[in-house]
Amino acid sequence: MKGVQFSGVASGIKASGLDLALVYFEEPTDVAALYTRNKVKAAHILYNRKRVKGAVRALLVNAGCANACTGLEGVRDLGEIAEGLSSELGIKNDEILFASTGVIGKRLPVGKIIATLPLLRKSLREKNIEPFARAIMTTDTYPKIVQATVPGKAGGSIAGVAKGAGMMNPLFATMLSFLFTDCSVQNEQLTKLMPALGRDSFERITVDGDTSTNDTVMVFSRKRGDAVCDMAVFKEKLLNLMKDLAFLIVRDGEGATKVIHITVTGARKKEVAEKLARRISVSPLVKTAFFGCDPNWGRIIAAAGDAGVPIRPEKVEIVMQGERLALEGVEVPFSEEKLKRLMDKKEVDLVVDLHDGKAAYDLYTTDLTFDYVKINASYRS
Amino acid sequence: MKGVQFSGVASGIKASGLDLALVYFEEPTDVAALYTRNKVKAAHILYNRKRVKGAVRALLVNAGCANACTGLEGVRDLGEIAEGLSSELGIKNDEILFASTGVIGKRLPVGKIIATLPLLRKSLREKNIEPFARAIMTTDTYPKIVQATVPGKAGGSIAGVAKGAGMMNPLFATMLSFLFTDCSVQNEQLTKLMPALGRDSFERITVDGDTSTNDTVMVFSRKRGDAVCDMAVFKEKLLNLMKDLAFLIVRDGEGATKVIHITVTGARKKEVAEKLARRISVSPLVKTAFFGCDPNWGRIIAAAGDAGVPIRPEKVEIVMQGERLALEGVEVPFSEEKLKRLMDKKEVDLVVDLHDGKAAYDLYTTDLTFDYVKINASYRS
Repeated sequence: MKGVQFSGVASGIKASGLDLALVYFEEPTDVAALYTRNKVKAAHILYNRKRVKGAVRALLVNAGCANACTGLEGVRDLGEIAEGLSSELGIKNDEILFASTGVIGKRLPVGKIIATLPLLRKSLREKNIEPFARAIMTTDTYPKIVQATVPGKAGGSIAGVAKGAGMMNPLFATMLSFLFTDCSVQNEQLTKLMPALGRDSFERITVDGDTSTNDTVMVFSRKRGDAVCDMAVFKEKLLNLMKDLAFLIVRDGEGATKVIHITVTGARKKEVAEKLARRISVSPLVKTAFFGCDPNWGRIIAAAGDAGVPIRPEKVEIVMQGERLALEGVEVPFSEEKLKRLMDKKEVDLVVDLHDGKAAYDLYTTDLTFDYVKINASYRS
Repeated sequence: MKGVQFSGVASGIKASGLDLALVYFEEPTDVAALYTRNKVKAAHILYNRKRVKGAVRALLVNAGCANACTGLEGVRDLGEIAEGLSSELGIKNDEILFASTGVIGKRLPVGKIIATLPLLRKSLREKNIEPFARAIMTTDTYPKIVQATVPGKAGGSIAGVAKGAGMMNPLFATMLSFLFTDCSVQNEQLTKLMPALGRDSFERITVDGDTSTNDTVMVFSRKRGDAVCDMAVFKEKLLNLMKDLAFLIVRDGEGATKVIHITVTGARKKEVAEKLARRISVSPLVKTAFFGCDPNWGRIIAAAGDAGVPIRPEKVEIVMQGERLALEGVEVPFSEEKLKRLMDKKEVDLVVDLHDGKAAYDLYTTDLTFDYVKINASYRS
């Protein structure tokens, strides 16, 4: 994107590979952000929130170290890095934002990072969005980049990158996502929109139900004067890109063999549908059954009964990949063999209809596999 | 126990092995029970609750089929079996209780069960508590039996059995536990005590956080006239046996290599401590780290931060097997090698001290292993 330069290099935070990423904005750029709801928040979130509000010129992201649970020292480390980066780029300290991902409880290697800043600056290019996307990965299996154009008087564009800690622990440590646009959108308007955009994209995915200390979504808008975009169209395009990034993250979920699209419908309230969908999506018994391609609807309805919201089991209908497994709370005859084949796919569709109202909620999750255990039992060691 | 006869036989509900168990009380016997809080309840719970209150003479338990989500038919099936059993034993229909465990959504094979009742009756013996305990197992790896004597004027005794669906899905489908005593205790008093006894025993264990549709705890008291026990002593003995059974269940948790004793202390309220302990105990990231003997305290504090209750991360202390990992929310130096050795045990102790008050809560859970996935991805098939 014109006026937005990216770079991604290796600084030695990780044992090998790219781990330090920079975005440099040639002009002051507005930013709207969402951060984790976890009560334990990473240093970069505490730091960014303390920053004087206003336009920014740079975003520095590191992988390999979450800089979470590092106390005041963790925040001061970022202040020290900001000193170095501002003088390297010739910008002000408070025009810099940070984001981190990786192991919780370890301090950043400040010396290594500061020593790498000149290389990081020299590598800045408008076209370098891919090295940037690669340098924020932990063990994601692919970089996650999306782009869209927004029609308008002159038209604008949006680009986005994300990392899901794919093979590690998405939504936990850490989901990061950055989007960039040159559309002339009002930042206050965008800031107000952010919670709703997040709710309908990143909050619709879950891998292990563990909320990160580092989760961060930022939208940078650099306002190319001539790119005047219709706000409604811009919003729709932005939301779609966020959904695309969220799907890329869940598809790359730790050890996952499939993505499961869970829809709870026929609820009296959306909140009820959401609670049920979330409860089903984190049940290890449901998730292992999906891994085994087992149409074990009993585990699904039992998880629903355990969601802490009232349901009427005798009304529940369960449909897997278009095939009905249960109606009015009891099993209907189905071919186990056929269902096993239907479930042996990269994407599996599950609908739980409560037949009790008109509200619905849907989200995406993964199956629970041997590789999930392998990855997470050996992380750090 | 005198006057209480047990039997356990194979009826063909499961492909092989014991699957049908009977307790016959020579005299009318009082019963106090706890059932699952899952909104979806198995047929035996619906049936038992409809029964006219009063003393009972028999309990029939089957493994291999949960008889849950089977609608009115599932309850009627039990009525039909009660007809057969009452005539076989020469007792009344409403003196019979039922309990089931196994796969959800399938009907009981009523014909097979009724055909097996004569054999079941002929096998009744006071000493047959072990075949009984074996016949209620699904894939538990050992029968779970406990006994205690209660001092008093003449003294009495308590015996208990449980099944945890050890290798399958404890607390889900299904935890069953039955206790028997000849102490002359008032049933109303016992019934009132039951919720508290359950809270401090079976509710202190979790394997996968999934609550069963079938969970059942029953205490039968046959009141030998001369066994007059002190109620306070009786209560303590009973609670200890319930705790023992609960521990036997969690130790046999699906695929588990270790039991983790989680204590959250220094909380302002017990409810806060409980929420944190439960949240930590179901985190797949925490559980896989325990499997890998990884002292990954960052995952523990992140789960705590995500429990939906206020915590002050900057005060949190984390102690594993007596070794401090974190103080005031940040890491303290520790030897990873030493911790790995300390965690490579059958029982591991974790203390999370909030340093924010005086309330505490503790529970037992298991690690999340390859075998857990193997067992649950292939259940039913």
